[in-house]
Amino acid sequence: MERVPVLKLGDLLIVSIQIDLQDQSVLMLQEDLADAIVDSRARGVIIDITAVEIVDSFIGRMLSTIASISRMLDAETIVVGMRPAVAITLVELGLSLGGVRTALNLEKGVAMLKDRDGADSGAVPE
Amino acid sequence: MERVPVLKLGDLLIVSIQIDLQDQSVLMLQEDLADAIVDSRARGVIIDITAVEIVDSFIGRMLSTIASISRMLDAETIVVGMRPAVAITLVELGLSLGGVRTALNLEKGVAMLKDRDGADSGAVPE
Repeated sequence: MERVPVLKLGDLLIVSIQIDLQDQSVLMLQEDLADAIVDSRARGVIIDITAVEIVDSFIGRMLSTIASISRMLDAETIVVGMRPAVAITLVELGLSLGGVRTALNLEKGVAMLKDRDGADSGAVPE
Repeated sequence: MERVPVLKLGDLLIVSIQIDLQDQSVLMLQEDLADAIVDSRARGVIIDITAVEIVDSFIGRMLSTIASISRMLDAETIVVGMRPAVAITLVELGLSLGGVRTALNLEKGVAMLKDRDGADSGAVPE
């Protein structure tokens, strides 16, 4: 079970990170996600890191890279479910997660993407 | 990262199974899920098994148990993202996933729960 699944819901993609990501699985995730954005014309990507207990510069960079790739494909990335300890570590490491927006949980992340899209489409799964 | 996160979206709970579940993690998942159903007054539970490549009677029983617990708490369980090979194995093993409904993917699972609730509430995340 090395591949992180990308779930589609309306024009959102949801990724829940639960495994310890290695170089190879990160590359696969980035490819899968890019493909999924194009295939599903997704407007937003939500990455849930509730299960991530330890974060390092590798994970931090991965999140930034995913956000950059998504932006190229016209989708916004929101990281949700960050544990307090993870937030503290990120700041201590001096990692700012450039270009990545965060929300407290999945629900707030979805609301954030919905607000952005306003009334211009059936933007969010119903 | 042994704990499977339970994501809340509207009155749905979404669980994406990606790790090899052991006895202990299954028990934790069942407890977390039961707590989450009560805390969030969820009406539906969607279990995504896209990442599950191999299924055995242990996993099959776990899915049935989760569905039974959820039903006790007035929430319906739908298993989504089953791989073709997994479906074949389940049938060959004679496991029928009693009491568990399935849908092709997350989107169809959400639609199924929405249909059930009809217009009686803002049943599905918007």
